[in-house]
Amino acid sequence: MGDFSNYGGSDEENAEIKRLNAEVDADTDNFENWEKLVRACEGLEGGLNRNSSPQALATLRATYDRFLLKFPLLFGYWKKYADLEFNISGPESAEMVYERGCASITNSVDLWTEYCSFKMETTHTPHLVRELFERGATHVGLDFLAHPFWDKYLEYEERQEAQDKIVSILNRVIRIPMHQYARYFERLRTLAQTRPLLELVSADALARYRGEVEAESATYGIQKSEPEIERDIRAKIDAQLYTVFQQTQAETTKRWTFESEIKRPYFHVTELEHAQLANWRKYLDFEESEGNFSRIVFLYERCLVTCALYDEFWFRYARWMSAQEGKEEEVRNIYLRATTLYVPVSRPGIRLQYAYFEEMSERVDVARDIHAAILNKLPDCVEAIVSWANLQRRQSGLDAAIEVYKAQIDSPTVDIFTKAALVTEWAYLLWKVKGSSEEARNCFSKNVQWYSDSRHFWQKWLEFELGQPTNAELEEQHGERIKDIIQTIRSKSRLSPAVKQELCQVYLNYLQDRGGKKAMKEFLALDRELYGPQSISAITKAKLGGKENGVAMGELDETTRQKAESRFYSFYQLHMDPDPNAQGPASFN
Amino acid sequence: MGDFSNYGGSDEENAEIKRLNAEVDADTDNFENWEKLVRACEGLEGGLNRNSSPQALATLRATYDRFLLKFPLLFGYWKKYADLEFNISGPESAEMVYERGCASITNSVDLWTEYCSFKMETTHTPHLVRELFERGATHVGLDFLAHPFWDKYLEYEERQEAQDKIVSILNRVIRIPMHQYARYFERLRTLAQTRPLLELVSADALARYRGEVEAESATYGIQKSEPEIERDIRAKIDAQLYTVFQQTQAETTKRWTFESEIKRPYFHVTELEHAQLANWRKYLDFEESEGNFSRIVFLYERCLVTCALYDEFWFRYARWMSAQEGKEEEVRNIYLRATTLYVPVSRPGIRLQYAYFEEMSERVDVARDIHAAILNKLPDCVEAIVSWANLQRRQSGLDAAIEVYKAQIDSPTVDIFTKAALVTEWAYLLWKVKGSSEEARNCFSKNVQWYSDSRHFWQKWLEFELGQPTNAELEEQHGERIKDIIQTIRSKSRLSPAVKQELCQVYLNYLQDRGGKKAMKEFLALDRELYGPQSISAITKAKLGGKENGVAMGELDETTRQKAESRFYSFYQLHMDPDPNAQGPASFN
Repeated sequence: MGDFSNYGGSDEENAEIKRLNAEVDADTDNFENWEKLVRACEGLEGGLNRNSSPQALATLRATYDRFLLKFPLLFGYWKKYADLEFNISGPESAEMVYERGCASITNSVDLWTEYCSFKMETTHTPHLVRELFERGATHVGLDFLAHPFWDKYLEYEERQEAQDKIVSILNRVIRIPMHQYARYFERLRTLAQTRPLLELVSADALARYRGEVEAESATYGIQKSEPEIERDIRAKIDAQLYTVFQQTQAETTKRWTFESEIKRPYFHVTELEHAQLANWRKYLDFEESEGNFSRIVFLYERCLVTCALYDEFWFRYARWMSAQEGKEEEVRNIYLRATTLYVPVSRPGIRLQYAYFEEMSERVDVARDIHAAILNKLPDCVEAIVSWANLQRRQSGLDAAIEVYKAQIDSPTVDIFTKAALVTEWAYLLWKVKGSSEEARNCFSKNVQWYSDSRHFWQKWLEFELGQPTNAELEEQHGERIKDIIQTIRSKSRLSPAVKQELCQVYLNYLQDRGGKKAMKEFLALDRELYGPQSISAITKAKLGGKENGVAMGELDETTRQKAESRFYSFYQLHMDPDPNAQGPASFN
Repeated sequence: MGDFSNYGGSDEENAEIKRLNAEVDADTDNFENWEKLVRACEGLEGGLNRNSSPQALATLRATYDRFLLKFPLLFGYWKKYADLEFNISGPESAEMVYERGCASITNSVDLWTEYCSFKMETTHTPHLVRELFERGATHVGLDFLAHPFWDKYLEYEERQEAQDKIVSILNRVIRIPMHQYARYFERLRTLAQTRPLLELVSADALARYRGEVEAESATYGIQKSEPEIERDIRAKIDAQLYTVFQQTQAETTKRWTFESEIKRPYFHVTELEHAQLANWRKYLDFEESEGNFSRIVFLYERCLVTCALYDEFWFRYARWMSAQEGKEEEVRNIYLRATTLYVPVSRPGIRLQYAYFEEMSERVDVARDIHAAILNKLPDCVEAIVSWANLQRRQSGLDAAIEVYKAQIDSPTVDIFTKAALVTEWAYLLWKVKGSSEEARNCFSKNVQWYSDSRHFWQKWLEFELGQPTNAELEEQHGERIKDIIQTIRSKSRLSPAVKQELCQVYLNYLQDRGGKKAMKEFLALDRELYGPQSISAITKAKLGGKENGVAMGELDETTRQKAESRFYSFYQLHMDPDPNAQGPASFN
């Protein structure tokens, strides 16, 4: 990245670039800041060219490299970068950029077309040019809108006056369902009338057609001349071409609606409309139902350029691929691209899924590293910590799991309410996995002094006590324990009255379901306290703005209160089927 | 009710009344049908009078009696009924109707005023008339809009030329916060200038005033004449009146906003606006904070004429009253009126609350009867059945509770999905109260053959197995049990795919939290099956309209499916604080 204090421009330009760099660093997801920075670099020294200063060129390249590492799917910027390199350093440098671009966004018709176009203008060795066209064809040839690419390929062969190659290309293209399928068919049909037969069909096919024509003649006892035979063979080839045309037409028609609904076929950082996502879903359903592996993969890849920032499609792609036989490496690759490049880290779901995949593949260390990486960015992500502990439990046993919680609870950077949740998980392990309710209870009662403001802590403690096995003899002790917790919540916790009300409801249920002969007296008294008017209920009074506990107990400020009362949901709990009637832009989160 | 085939009218009239009676019987909550029936009865024989046929009169009375038993708060119809009786049978009959009306709606200013007005026109014994006015004053005298009643009382005493009584009435009225408080003050102040002193104040007070006046004169060494003394005493009385006026004014002002917000002070069967309910809540809060028991009760009673069909206010009244010392009978009376007269049986919450109150008061049989009465009207009310079983459990032990479930499960009229829920409650008793997981498990596994289409049944079975205590040795067997349930749900149940997906999610969590070394393989396979695209997931395919299980398994029709997948909520689970910003009419349910 060179010396940041000298970007190779005037003092004023350098200051401006420094400022823009700082803005980009402060918010790397902000596309507009990136654009401004790139523009500023391009404008250095009144516009860069091969005589510009090394510093200015280094600045330009460093900026482009960082920008396209962040947004690798912006094909237009790869093209622009290649053009700049061409002007600055010539075709070899430009070609390097094209190579990097096509590796970053493998299925851009535009970028491959530009690259091939550039190649045919700058290279005089036809087999090198054809090699590139053929590479392009494997990456974008199946695209519904691949006609600019194929047109360029045909244009090149026209320049080479290689009619046989043109026929061969057309013979491939007419089999692909494409927007402009008819045009290629017409061209091939016209050409076919004058080209040597062996250019049009294989020697085997030709022999078969000849045999058919001769056999038909023989049936009627007619001896045909060679020109007559050739005319008849050409008629058969034409009929065969027409059959292909009809098939391609049918396949094109099936996809036409889906394709015509795609309003944005390229990547952009802004949100897509819900209707667009719905169309991609339906299109993928359709292509999957057709069952052609290559076409399905090709469509997923196209979809994931447009919808790269929606994890739904990455999940779907990984799930679909993992249902195919022997595609472990492909699945891994999907997860890798999703987690390293596209899905925002604020959505850790797919990263956890990736970790489970690696764990399943017996790459447990990788699974651990994925968890560590999530926590590196989201240090208070309870779901990831619990997932990590469970990974350790499954692979190395209970103590290893507890170590995970210990480490987080001891960490000075972890939030106290995160710690409260982790303590409950620790207790859960002792209870459910170790089978020791005693130790679990100790874990709650020893820790309540630190976490009495955490809603989650109380909820889990109550769930724990309610989940204890009982019978007639034990029930009284059991009830006392729950009552004690309820009373401690009411007297010691600084939670808001609404949350206390919700937690205490548990005890109302308990009194109904498990309480003894006198339970209803307590029940009605608590009911009054929880739901009565403020003149008779301290909780209601506090809810309406008064103080339940007088001035003695401090109050939580609003930010702390929200954290104290937050709920922790797992990825699956938040799962929702997409709403087919949703309108407007779809949030990435 | 007389002979229903002869209502005392023409054949045509009889047929019409028969039809209207049938309509009313079919939907007794429908107010319009009642109104039509009443109008038709009044119109018999071209309008009823003392010469009408006994049949027609019997029809009229029977209809009014039934109508006002159903809607006792409609004061206007009591008045109308009394007028009719007056025309038909004279003052004694009319008086009986007024008595019944005032017992049914004790706090109607209009009805008491009408009754007193009727009484003063028909009775020539002043002490009987005054007795009635005094009874009325205890019931409606505190009303903010009681001025028509007080005006009538004053009018009567004017006719009697009883100036001393007028002074005495005014002296009471000027202490009541009322809309027209100022008018009564002005009148008393004017009167006070000419009435004998002993009419205005008590002998004690008069002696005190005289003492003060004499003492003041003595201070200045002045000997005042009797007229001078009387003038000074009158000035003091006037000043004292003014102090009362100011106090009453202050009390009136405090209530003015609440009162002016009351748009409908009478009962009607249509819904109230949310804003009206909010005003009653705030007004009750205010009056409770003032702390005058009589005024609070008076306001609740007014509120419960207007809001009789909203159980929120009955709950509130009962809770508030039960927080007052020694008011058990009053609380019982509130519950009784709420449950027998007003709150629709479709809202059993307050009836259950009433049962808990009677159980607490050691009237267990009454508590049982209340439960039986709910089930009589709502035979599939799971909450009431569970509550009944718990009542039996608390008072008579486990076996008595199980008997409740058995009886309902054996009943031919109870819905199968209700029974499914009851079986899970039975299992819960065996598990949690008896402490026998073995018996509870048997209860589930023996009954699954009947209830495999019930969402609730599966949910509770899963919760039961997940709630079993385990440790390292037991975990494998534990996991197998849960897996078996999941597989049975998928293969045997006719629940919709979305519900299966939701139930199976539990197993995903289980695999994370409790699964062993190889758990993630199963996890990812199930994840794919639950959330993958339809080309690889039978569940997703079925969700989108395909069939998961092919044709072999029957499908539930939509009505059955909704019952099969319904959730059972308890009263407290559905509790919500009123939304202070709610707009529009407030539903009774």
